Amino acid sequence: MLQSFFEPKSIAIIGASKKPGKIGYEILKNIIEGGYVGKIFPVNPKENEILSLRCYHNIKEIKDHVDLAIIAIPATAIPSVLEDCGVKGIKNVIIISAGFSEVGNIELENRVKKIAQRHGIRIVGPNCAGIINTWYNLFASFEVRCKRGGISLISQSGAFGGAFITRANYENVGISKFVSYGNAIDINESHLIRYMADDKTTKVIGIYLESTKDGREFISAAKLASKKKPVVVLKAGRTMSGKRATVSHTGSLAGDDKIYDAAFRQAGVIRVFDFDDFIDTLYILETGMLPSNDNIFIVTNSGGPGVLAVDECEYIGLKVPESSYELKEKLSFLPPICTIKNPIDLVADANYSRYYDTLKVLAESNEVGGVIVICVPPIFIDPMDIAKAIVDVKAIFDEKKKPMIACFMSGDVVAESIKFLKENKIPVFQTPERAARAMQKLVLRKKIIERLQSS
Amino acid sequence: MLQSFFEPKSIAIIGASKKPGKIGYEILKNIIEGGYVGKIFPVNPKENEILSLRCYHNIKEIKDHVDLAIIAIPATAIPSVLEDCGVKGIKNVIIISAGFSEVGNIELENRVKKIAQRHGIRIVGPNCAGIINTWYNLFASFEVRCKRGGISLISQSGAFGGAFITRANYENVGISKFVSYGNAIDINESHLIRYMADDKTTKVIGIYLESTKDGREFISAAKLASKKKPVVVLKAGRTMSGKRATVSHTGSLAGDDKIYDAAFRQAGVIRVFDFDDFIDTLYILETGMLPSNDNIFIVTNSGGPGVLAVDECEYIGLKVPESSYELKEKLSFLPPICTIKNPIDLVADANYSRYYDTLKVLAESNEVGGVIVICVPPIFIDPMDIAKAIVDVKAIFDEKKKPMIACFMSGDVVAESIKFLKENKIPVFQTPERAARAMQKLVLRKKIIERLQSS
Repeated sequence: MLQSFFEPKSIAIIGASKKPGKIGYEILKNIIEGGYVGKIFPVNPKENEILSLRCYHNIKEIKDHVDLAIIAIPATAIPSVLEDCGVKGIKNVIIISAGFSEVGNIELENRVKKIAQRHGIRIVGPNCAGIINTWYNLFASFEVRCKRGGISLISQSGAFGGAFITRANYENVGISKFVSYGNAIDINESHLIRYMADDKTTKVIGIYLESTKDGREFISAAKLASKKKPVVVLKAGRTMSGKRATVSHTGSLAGDDKIYDAAFRQAGVIRVFDFDDFIDTLYILETGMLPSNDNIFIVTNSGGPGVLAVDECEYIGLKVPESSYELKEKLSFLPPICTIKNPIDLVADANYSRYYDTLKVLAESNEVGGVIVICVPPIFIDPMDIAKAIVDVKAIFDEKKKPMIACFMSGDVVAESIKFLKENKIPVFQTPERAARAMQKLVLRKKIIERLQSS
Repeated sequence: MLQSFFEPKSIAIIGASKKPGKIGYEILKNIIEGGYVGKIFPVNPKENEILSLRCYHNIKEIKDHVDLAIIAIPATAIPSVLEDCGVKGIKNVIIISAGFSEVGNIELENRVKKIAQRHGIRIVGPNCAGIINTWYNLFASFEVRCKRGGISLISQSGAFGGAFITRANYENVGISKFVSYGNAIDINESHLIRYMADDKTTKVIGIYLESTKDGREFISAAKLASKKKPVVVLKAGRTMSGKRATVSHTGSLAGDDKIYDAAFRQAGVIRVFDFDDFIDTLYILETGMLPSNDNIFIVTNSGGPGVLAVDECEYIGLKVPESSYELKEKLSFLPPICTIKNPIDLVADANYSRYYDTLKVLAESNEVGGVIVICVPPIFIDPMDIAKAIVDVKAIFDEKKKPMIACFMSGDVVAESIKFLKENKIPVFQTPERAARAMQKLVLRKKIIERLQSS
């Protein structure tokens, strides 16, 4: 049903502009530069050509079929333009423009809603940032473009979406789809969750939510999706002051946070409470990795960060058991200065082979559910050597269906090795605690799958 | 007493080497390249010259007085070298070498201790990463060099120190002093805390701690320091598994975490639980800013991140009250589309003057204790304009002794403005939650000062 929003065969940009910085210019430019292959129809009564494309003075001038219209004109002008869209037979419209219920113009919003219903037009928005589908080269948004990946973001807030995408770009994390649904006068978070649930390139669904108008439908959609892929939510308005803020922001009351929390649990949704944790969680869950059991082992070349990882793991409910006698035997090739209890401390001079050999033993041991591997390179060790050991041993972890998460510290010293690890599909974090929290999400996801399958 | 460790007039590097990658090479190179102005005496029986300096075959060959000796030779060779140091009259020694109690060689450690006591030698280490004093151009460590600033780090773990410094460099955060004290056979965390308490260039003290052997002395030293400047601790070994890990790492039991927690509270120490929070807390407390009261106001151009900031503030105990009638009156110049309740949402098209005028009102209002200012630049706004407004209004905040913390999101889009803000002493974070947690630390510090002054 929503396919024409994410894979439109032709697009009209109503309010297309020649002026850089204008929404109607930036969206058109994004669509063209993003490599969209369908037909593009800029619409503006005052222009004949924009960005080397013929500009139409109104929708009616366009002879071809228009699959999707994007509207970026002042709010008050929208009803008549939407009428034109209906007459023209356009069935899918994104209204970028703000100035509706979020600022008290409920009457105008209701008029738009009625026109859309009368013509059978589906609406995303108003007051939104548009849609991105990297796998279709569709950048129907004024947000910066992003690279392909498996994360799809459904965001009630446009600016949150922008902040997320720029952060994802910065961390070299790929996006599948992005949709900012704004005031949701028609298509809402539940429709979008259902669409993403069946979307092949979406490996994990992230949702920024302030409120939902239909809790039952949200639970139903989220539960359906959770059975197929991880669903992660960052729910804003969880405190009294936060609720007051959401009223001002989207005009809707955020509601009792305990009810939301229970709903998320029931639906198998993974809830996070922080922007950093939101992006880290989506990043790790996109990998599709699942621990083979709950026992997490830490491998490190530095004691302090190893202890911090163990602390955080246990604090957030992971098991970090001492190595069994059998496992210790298998690790007896390590020099006596090394610690083999868990954390397994390979000490500062650990090189490629000490890391590789240790990780191989852990990958092959049934008592190990997942591994966090830490490297704080001393001056006499090239972190790239350690990164290579990790990349080389990955095949064994994959074969044993066991996650391995890396933590390389810090900054420029490890920038190149972090890049290399990411290129080779090793998830990597810059602090032990973030690596631990990522591992916890994999354990949590596994438990959710087991629960949803048995229910 | 510890001055000769941090401001030595001459240094001998025992175990100096010609081989890059060797500890004895890297420390010598760091000392030379760091711009140390005192005399440098490399010591190595097999070399006549290292890095264009005369190399002495043993300590006795040096005719001049040696203020500080740094030892980086195999552990077993240390007793006889330390005897030589004693005979030569060297009173301050850093033992970098590992291989003592942390790997079970308690007898060797005791021998070293006795020799030092007999000669009245003070020891930092063994099993440590050395000392840095950026304000004296002293980089007597194999860690990468760092820029000057007000943070001093006392770290039980050498690798933690390395990870911290590289991260600080990456975030362009400056360091005053760094000392990794390792096995602490003589000088321990309490001695170092007392030294930092009186050190003029140290604005905030950060401690990575696994265990302390003398809890009373720690509380006494930390309390003394806390009265003068903020003391922040990241305590590893807070869980059962974490404790097991510290035993392996430093050979000492971490002890009951509740006892540590109570001790930290008593001493006015700010405790954090996470590497990111540790560096963020030191970074914000270094500014010396204190809120004028507990009421925090959020200014934003984007609803979602504004709500996240409010949520986090309230969740961690800050007050984010609705603006008073009087304050709303003062903000009535804002366009009606803006929200003036708190968060104060200036909406997407907020420019220099809308930010400047709003921030000026908040700086001058008695009901405002501190401000978090958020910018998620839409495509048509240059974030540098917003950054300039923040920098230009800073003088009023300074005059009113009121903190202003910025949050610019995200990545490359705001990299230049973040750099500009930092250059102009505006603390800036990349997520609303981290900005909120930073503000909380300022509120906490204020309460600690009040409590310590009244006790």
